Amino acid sequence: MRAAVMRNKKLVVDDVATPAPGPGEALVKTLACGICGSDLHALKHAEKLVEGARRSGGPFIMDLKRDIVMGHEFCAEVVDYGAQTQRRFKPGARVCAMPVLIRPTGVETVGYSNDHPGGYGEYMRLTEKLLLEVPNGLPTDRAALTEPLAVGYHAVARARLEKDDAPLVIGCGPVGLAVIAALKLKGAHPIVAADFSPRRRQLAQQMGADVVVDPKEKSPYDSWSELAVYADPSRAPQLPPWMPGPARRPAVIFECVGVPGVIESIMAAAPAHARMVVVGVCMERDHIEPLFGINKELNLQFVLGYTGEEFATTLRNLAEGAVNGDPLVTGKVGVEGVAQAFEDLASPERHAKILVEPWRS
Amino acid sequence: MRAAVMRNKKLVVDDVATPAPGPGEALVKTLACGICGSDLHALKHAEKLVEGARRSGGPFIMDLKRDIVMGHEFCAEVVDYGAQTQRRFKPGARVCAMPVLIRPTGVETVGYSNDHPGGYGEYMRLTEKLLLEVPNGLPTDRAALTEPLAVGYHAVARARLEKDDAPLVIGCGPVGLAVIAALKLKGAHPIVAADFSPRRRQLAQQMGADVVVDPKEKSPYDSWSELAVYADPSRAPQLPPWMPGPARRPAVIFECVGVPGVIESIMAAAPAHARMVVVGVCMERDHIEPLFGINKELNLQFVLGYTGEEFATTLRNLAEGAVNGDPLVTGKVGVEGVAQAFEDLASPERHAKILVEPWRS
Repeated sequence: MRAAVMRNKKLVVDDVATPAPGPGEALVKTLACGICGSDLHALKHAEKLVEGARRSGGPFIMDLKRDIVMGHEFCAEVVDYGAQTQRRFKPGARVCAMPVLIRPTGVETVGYSNDHPGGYGEYMRLTEKLLLEVPNGLPTDRAALTEPLAVGYHAVARARLEKDDAPLVIGCGPVGLAVIAALKLKGAHPIVAADFSPRRRQLAQQMGADVVVDPKEKSPYDSWSELAVYADPSRAPQLPPWMPGPARRPAVIFECVGVPGVIESIMAAAPAHARMVVVGVCMERDHIEPLFGINKELNLQFVLGYTGEEFATTLRNLAEGAVNGDPLVTGKVGVEGVAQAFEDLASPERHAKILVEPWRS
Repeated sequence: MRAAVMRNKKLVVDDVATPAPGPGEALVKTLACGICGSDLHALKHAEKLVEGARRSGGPFIMDLKRDIVMGHEFCAEVVDYGAQTQRRFKPGARVCAMPVLIRPTGVETVGYSNDHPGGYGEYMRLTEKLLLEVPNGLPTDRAALTEPLAVGYHAVARARLEKDDAPLVIGCGPVGLAVIAALKLKGAHPIVAADFSPRRRQLAQQMGADVVVDPKEKSPYDSWSELAVYADPSRAPQLPPWMPGPARRPAVIFECVGVPGVIESIMAAAPAHARMVVVGVCMERDHIEPLFGINKELNLQFVLGYTGEEFATTLRNLAEGAVNGDPLVTGKVGVEGVAQAFEDLASPERHAKILVEPWRS
């Protein structure tokens, strides 16, 4: 099959073996697959990724000397089945699935694996019982957004928002935008979001941010502070007389950048008792100042991925129009265009999410 | 008055000005005051403490060129009152209080201040409305343990323990011992605690630890894992078939060491979804590996101090015998003995808590 292959730390187009579905697995044809920031990172810092995974006992241990077909944000079409399957969906049915294979020996990843090609190739093998049929009427492009939007949905679920919580989203790349969509869905208000890029701030507004901030112009924490007052003052806790009022609502800050230094900078700027949800994936060892955390009694919740239920709910939310991911998709390419798309995605002004359509000639 | 004074980064005994109580303040005579690990740190790394406080917006900004009388774990006797006071307790009444002054201009600290001497001196000024009378029959030595035990009580309160949570205490210095006492009070079981020192492990058992571990002999996380199984298997979540059973109870790990590297080492070793409560005060910038947190979805709750209510509850718990702090007190000195006591406390084998009795000749 044709695929955009990571080989010797470069993306090349080549014919690779079409995967055979094992017991309990389906063979599917990739219809569309989003390019994830983690894939960009995996290409650019492949050794770091592998080394970080090894250090942290993570699930993605790849052999960089062998081919890897990335791509884990896909919508696909059922082609065939392996042994021990129920053949739940007819060939031609459109499906989404979490990008993992559940095998008797454990979980394996699709798209960060030497053995299981992801959506930058024409075909994938997927675990049958993880397949979710795409509801009628939901276009393939939108269904392919299930995975990245589920990441935001999970992050907001883990934040365990309470009535008065006031969110602040730091970074409006695809992860931050997915968090904003999930916050909107939860009814959080106001949603304050910060990004240096005008285009990203515009996307943040389209996804549901109420106020966007350019950190070059103004501190996002100051903007948050102005907005995070209690609409109903009777709900506000009483402040001691020497503290400047009015009381602020509890801060829930989403770290959606994922580069070294960001966690520490948020800890430095966060208001007392803030809860931080670390959604960005910083793959390098990083610094923190424990005293920032201690003096303000901060809480850091690291999050990863989503549950099966959250993934299914996200697909349903897309189908029902509760979430509109359309603004995210800023381009489409065939396998030949993947290498260029990776370069284009480096600029936040041009793109948010580019979909790969491996069947395009 | 006589006091053990921090002067030029050394402890000396000298006569210093007796503090005058301001409006709303009482003058008290120090009966007993515990030496805290933070005081040892403040003496040894005074510049770091000040610099860390400055960086993190902390409350303890001291001028090291001027005298400082430390000591913030005290029981005292009412002597006199300043203006605008209710004179709630008669002279001679024994009191405890949080080591802060509440003034119209803000909160100031007692014991980490150039202006407000702490319990290593004969007299202190305290905010009248923070005074708590020591219940009849509670010896002064025990009442002086209110402050350090309240730190543990607060840490456990912030952990928001749920029925199945299984705690692990890393470090059995006074902070870890206070956490163990608070866990016991909450009915947490089993309480697993780790320390390299045999004496500290013995104290941990006296304070309520069910199992103590020498990390040189065995991983505390392995010990925890063996013990943290569900007594009632019907409460255990079902594990997927490829995960080795039995399911473990949710881990709540208390970091009670407070030196660089400990947070990272716990993040590396913690089981998935562990909640960490950072009670130890690491005053230096530190490293973490975000991937450890991400891959295991760890939660870090930094904590500091206690609320007024928690402080009062701790004094009441001591008075009612619900908590027995006696094993903690391993020595007593007058002001002349403070410098030596600071050196003695460096060895975990000899001491846990030394009380200063400034009135001793």
